[in-house]
Amino acid sequence: MKIILVGFGVIGKGVLKVINLKKNHLLEKYGLDLSVVAICDSSGAAINKEGLDLELALKIKEETGKIASYPEFGQNIGIIEVIESVPADIVIEVSPTNIHTGEPAKSYMLKAFETKKHVVSANKGPLALFFKEITGVAKEHGVILRYEASVGGATPIINLAKETLAGNRVKSIKGILNGTTNYILTKMEKEQLDFNTVLKEAQELGIAETNPHQDISGLDTAAKLAILANSIMGREVTINDVVLEGITRITPESLLMANKGGYAIKLIGEVTDKKLEVCPKLVPIDHPLNVKGSLNVAMFNTDLANDIVVVGTGAGDVETASAILSDILNIHQSLKK
Amino acid sequence: MKIILVGFGVIGKGVLKVINLKKNHLLEKYGLDLSVVAICDSSGAAINKEGLDLELALKIKEETGKIASYPEFGQNIGIIEVIESVPADIVIEVSPTNIHTGEPAKSYMLKAFETKKHVVSANKGPLALFFKEITGVAKEHGVILRYEASVGGATPIINLAKETLAGNRVKSIKGILNGTTNYILTKMEKEQLDFNTVLKEAQELGIAETNPHQDISGLDTAAKLAILANSIMGREVTINDVVLEGITRITPESLLMANKGGYAIKLIGEVTDKKLEVCPKLVPIDHPLNVKGSLNVAMFNTDLANDIVVVGTGAGDVETASAILSDILNIHQSLKK
Repeated sequence: MKIILVGFGVIGKGVLKVINLKKNHLLEKYGLDLSVVAICDSSGAAINKEGLDLELALKIKEETGKIASYPEFGQNIGIIEVIESVPADIVIEVSPTNIHTGEPAKSYMLKAFETKKHVVSANKGPLALFFKEITGVAKEHGVILRYEASVGGATPIINLAKETLAGNRVKSIKGILNGTTNYILTKMEKEQLDFNTVLKEAQELGIAETNPHQDISGLDTAAKLAILANSIMGREVTINDVVLEGITRITPESLLMANKGGYAIKLIGEVTDKKLEVCPKLVPIDHPLNVKGSLNVAMFNTDLANDIVVVGTGAGDVETASAILSDILNIHQSLKK
Repeated sequence: MKIILVGFGVIGKGVLKVINLKKNHLLEKYGLDLSVVAICDSSGAAINKEGLDLELALKIKEETGKIASYPEFGQNIGIIEVIESVPADIVIEVSPTNIHTGEPAKSYMLKAFETKKHVVSANKGPLALFFKEITGVAKEHGVILRYEASVGGATPIINLAKETLAGNRVKSIKGILNGTTNYILTKMEKEQLDFNTVLKEAQELGIAETNPHQDISGLDTAAKLAILANSIMGREVTINDVVLEGITRITPESLLMANKGGYAIKLIGEVTDKKLEVCPKLVPIDHPLNVKGSLNVAMFNTDLANDIVVVGTGAGDVETASAILSDILNIHQSLKK
């Protein structure tokens, strides 16, 4: 199976590390022979139809910041042109996310579909904005689109609901879908510190981004919630339909008061047939949704299986690559039969 | 897809209820046309190659206790003979479990494989004792065996680890796999009551069985743990290899002491490459494994995705049937491609 990797930041590097680590295992256990034939970043691409040397690619990126510096096979070329011209089975789309336009990731996906390539993506932007259009185009061209990594990092949320709980109707989903805000609230609660102090510390530790707006405003959670609403519950919504309130106004005093009453305050995304909202909510202390630190969690209320809760790591290079790998394996299994 | 239902107790009835409820949905959403051509219990069977009336079957069973009383198509016939002689795609094996011999369920499974029928089972006995033999025979005959419902009821544990986390190596599994003992411990802790008082109450409520030995001794958890060890971690063990301690010696005082130190005491099944044990363990109060009431939980420690935890309902007719239905749908999807 030939892979084009689009995007060579933290997640892209994680994907290469994981493929490198698992190459033999995948061949032996699943009969899957993975070969990365192109790697793209904003500098250009390295392209080799015989398969690139992944360790070398990681080394070149580390040293020069540019995959175009890859010896012999590196070149200055646009990503769309790579997707169009390089024969491959799957495009792994992990370019930077834009939750306002979905671009350029959306164009990469559509170009992949047009040229009959399956897509595995970790990109929230296009899916939170143009879910129906994008899945429609994939279907039209008879190719598979999978996107487990776009919500919850390593935590299997989308595939769990769609496949492992197949046959159930999911009536609602509630979850903590952003690790940064969960880390901040947990720390504020535990150490009785105010929001700005903890945010600053989280930024210094690299847990929160320099521009934390998307996390703390709830926008990141809203993007993920829109994806869950569309993919699992069959709703037709975008991030712009989500009723939104962030965590910036939460005080250590309110966390303490809630605690004394047997509750934690968490930034919860919730979708039902009628509701689509992200806001701070009280969660009973002994409830499975009350997870600590930067963990993510999703709870499905279903018609047959009652409530099912899944908890896991919401971010990280190798962790997110784990979700991407399971999507690749699922495509491989689908095609084998 | 033609189904033979073997076993018409609580779970068997749940399966028919769910098939009846979801018939149209399965056809519309998945293109799956399910028809139950035989239902067996210890009295005999109802057999109709055109498909049985499920509501009528449930009514007859309710009123007479015997499926053989089904009008026109009911008959006195052995289960093995039904499996052998009735053409069908899938045998749903939900006959009473025997964790000492695995019989007669094991013979039902093997007969199904020999006659080229796929099997979906909720039966712990055969799988906790003869995992390698049974999966080997299924493979030899080119048919599929699935058994999500054998561990954790509605909670997707086996399929989650094997499919949704595909590509990961599961390094250890820890879990609460028995709802009855979790209910008892939760109640003892909360209300500071002793073991026998809570057990008696649980029996009156129908949460614990009249003979609670398998639950409170940890044997039921051990059977499930052996299945997880074999199916997810590739170990070759049986229930007899599990180091075992039950919950009968736990006192409300020990639960209170643990609580004051920030812990709960839970009956934990744990498997690693070296360990295979069921015993009461301390779990930090704010840990995702600390689930209350009769909930089940499993935590996978993996090489890529870190820790993934899944929580759900461990018992119930419709809940267990949910896991069976997802297995049927997965077989249907596999065969379609």
